[in-house]
Amino acid sequence: MPLIVQKYGGTSVADADRIIGVARRIADAKIGGKSVVAVVSAMGDSTDELIRLAHTVSTSPDARELDLLLSTGELVSSTLLTMALKTLGYDAISLSGPQAGIRTDTMYGRARIDSIDPSRVQKELKAGHIVVVAGFQGISDNQDITTLGRGGSDTTAVALAAALGAERCEIYTDVDGIYTADPRIVPEARKLDEIGYQEMLELASYGAKMHPRSIELGSVFNVPIYVASSFGDAPGTTIHGDPDGSQMENRIKVTGIALNTNVAKITVRSVPDQPGVAAALFEPLAKVGISVDTIVQNTSSDRTTDISFTVSRTDLPQAESEVKLVMNELGTSSIVTDATLATVSVVGSGMQNTPGYASRMFRVLADGRINIDMITTSEIRISCIIQEGQAQEAVRLLHRDFQLDKGD
Amino acid sequence: MPLIVQKYGGTSVADADRIIGVARRIADAKIGGKSVVAVVSAMGDSTDELIRLAHTVSTSPDARELDLLLSTGELVSSTLLTMALKTLGYDAISLSGPQAGIRTDTMYGRARIDSIDPSRVQKELKAGHIVVVAGFQGISDNQDITTLGRGGSDTTAVALAAALGAERCEIYTDVDGIYTADPRIVPEARKLDEIGYQEMLELASYGAKMHPRSIELGSVFNVPIYVASSFGDAPGTTIHGDPDGSQMENRIKVTGIALNTNVAKITVRSVPDQPGVAAALFEPLAKVGISVDTIVQNTSSDRTTDISFTVSRTDLPQAESEVKLVMNELGTSSIVTDATLATVSVVGSGMQNTPGYASRMFRVLADGRINIDMITTSEIRISCIIQEGQAQEAVRLLHRDFQLDKGD
Repeated sequence: MPLIVQKYGGTSVADADRIIGVARRIADAKIGGKSVVAVVSAMGDSTDELIRLAHTVSTSPDARELDLLLSTGELVSSTLLTMALKTLGYDAISLSGPQAGIRTDTMYGRARIDSIDPSRVQKELKAGHIVVVAGFQGISDNQDITTLGRGGSDTTAVALAAALGAERCEIYTDVDGIYTADPRIVPEARKLDEIGYQEMLELASYGAKMHPRSIELGSVFNVPIYVASSFGDAPGTTIHGDPDGSQMENRIKVTGIALNTNVAKITVRSVPDQPGVAAALFEPLAKVGISVDTIVQNTSSDRTTDISFTVSRTDLPQAESEVKLVMNELGTSSIVTDATLATVSVVGSGMQNTPGYASRMFRVLADGRINIDMITTSEIRISCIIQEGQAQEAVRLLHRDFQLDKGD
Repeated sequence: MPLIVQKYGGTSVADADRIIGVARRIADAKIGGKSVVAVVSAMGDSTDELIRLAHTVSTSPDARELDLLLSTGELVSSTLLTMALKTLGYDAISLSGPQAGIRTDTMYGRARIDSIDPSRVQKELKAGHIVVVAGFQGISDNQDITTLGRGGSDTTAVALAAALGAERCEIYTDVDGIYTADPRIVPEARKLDEIGYQEMLELASYGAKMHPRSIELGSVFNVPIYVASSFGDAPGTTIHGDPDGSQMENRIKVTGIALNTNVAKITVRSVPDQPGVAAALFEPLAKVGISVDTIVQNTSSDRTTDISFTVSRTDLPQAESEVKLVMNELGTSSIVTDATLATVSVVGSGMQNTPGYASRMFRVLADGRINIDMITTSEIRISCIIQEGQAQEAVRLLHRDFQLDKGD
């Protein structure tokens, strides 16, 4: 029997009625002749409530304890969904992350999956059960519970799909697919039927609602990921390998515009321009698991340099204190931060080796009187870091100029 | 370093302030030179809330799923308590029931502990940690989460104390010790400094607030159990082996009066008086884990018999439907139930081999115009099943007549 993995986000299981609705949706897949593994997030904003609860007893809750605490949110939703399935008359069983064989490292709060032992899931599938797995969690080698951090349940779902050889992984969420831009900002934004892993990765990394981790996993293990709404039956978007390959040169050049407002910049001023400085600055950040995005270094005339880099706004306080610890070593005493920035990105695999996209983007922004703070590019993406207050206007201008409402 | 196990009930950890208070209390024991293992119940009435939640998605929630769901309550309280301890500056770590090595059978909702593998707890104690264990839960041989049912966290605590060779197990709760009778019913009731396992077992089995399971375990493994309030510093009651032994014949005869209002009676009428009837009746009840207490059988003249027995009022619906399934086999069609009963018991190891206590009890009840429905006795207990409406008056009359306010 073909196997699919379905993932349901927190809003999809926010209350009893929605849980019963999700159970019916899973049942439909089962009736349609599929084996189903369902991965669920915690109900509604229950994870935030648990974090709030932790802060009532501790100003900085211990990371290991917080993970064990947060893991209960997904146990609640997965057991409730399983009860609902059984009440509808379907054989189902819930498994915690550890029971589902999700082995991780010990980086609490942002653990990464080391491996999956799918034997228990396979055993339950063989017995004809619908298997409901608590997302977002795993177990470390020392038998401690870990959580996977942002996008964790999506990652659980795609990793399980890969380990089980599922035909695809379906992500049901509160958006009904991937759009050329956020439809709340650009009303004429268009839903895409399909998109390549790399394009989606760029879009997700630069603001689309999905977290890049699961897309990266899907790309590595070649698991097609279908993103759709859990509330309606409107067709969603399939993320898979090179969907436009057949269209050769005529394929669309720009796929979408991404906006990320979770951006903060740190500038370390007047650092001596000598080898080892970048390592001394960024190694401590890597050690505590903070991702650094854009890095810009400007050497000035007096043999010192300014180094600017961006991090998630949520990581800014920790990043700042880590940097301050090494400022002596760096030979500087000046650090400036800015938490009012946003990244606007134009993404499209068709842009590769095709000149002119970057200059067109800069022209659109300039015509809109939008100042560019930093620039960063990849093979298939051009990103500009601008003031957050101008970001929505920038997305609208770019969407119009690249004619993304027109379709292919 | 001497080891103690402390258990804190749901009301003791009902909110952040109380959790921090419990953390201070644990810290005091640590400062006093003890190694501490703390076992906690779920916060306040959160277990009831989870049960309510389960019933929003299913009229009869699957037992396995319900156990996994309920186990989250103790994970929440144990991680929060650990965070509070760390915030106070103590090394602490929380362990789930499975992590603490609590192995059980698979009787979901009322699992029994098969064995304890204390290696992880010992490792953490050796490292100087205060170990906080989620009570009420364990893991079966097939790696599924189970809960221990009523009195589960007390059982976890005493079983851990036994497995770890703790010097004693302290149960902190919302009562401040064991009384000669419920002080809400008998204002002159007296708190006992100490009581023997067997007496306490009888008191607990017949209505005192503790569940008999943990006392039985304490008795078997000779773990002294100290019961006290988690809110004050008033001395509590120590339950241990033969505390009155030194006083020889002069020891107090009656220790306390117990009242149990969770009593229901089932009478199966006109059953043929032949071998195998009792087995046919009680085997199915045992199979589903329903404890039968008092059993009375009256043979009448026409070679049929009435069999009456009592069960917990909460077990009555299930017990009734189990009995109805075997009524044909029993050759009867008549079954009567009564859920308005209570058991009043006089308990005291000094009563052994001393005649006259039973007749004195019956006389006190008769003088109070209280009708006795059934009678059951053990070596150190006499119980009368009476109408619930007269039960409190019966306790007061017996407490006065046996002069329990006088002390020893």
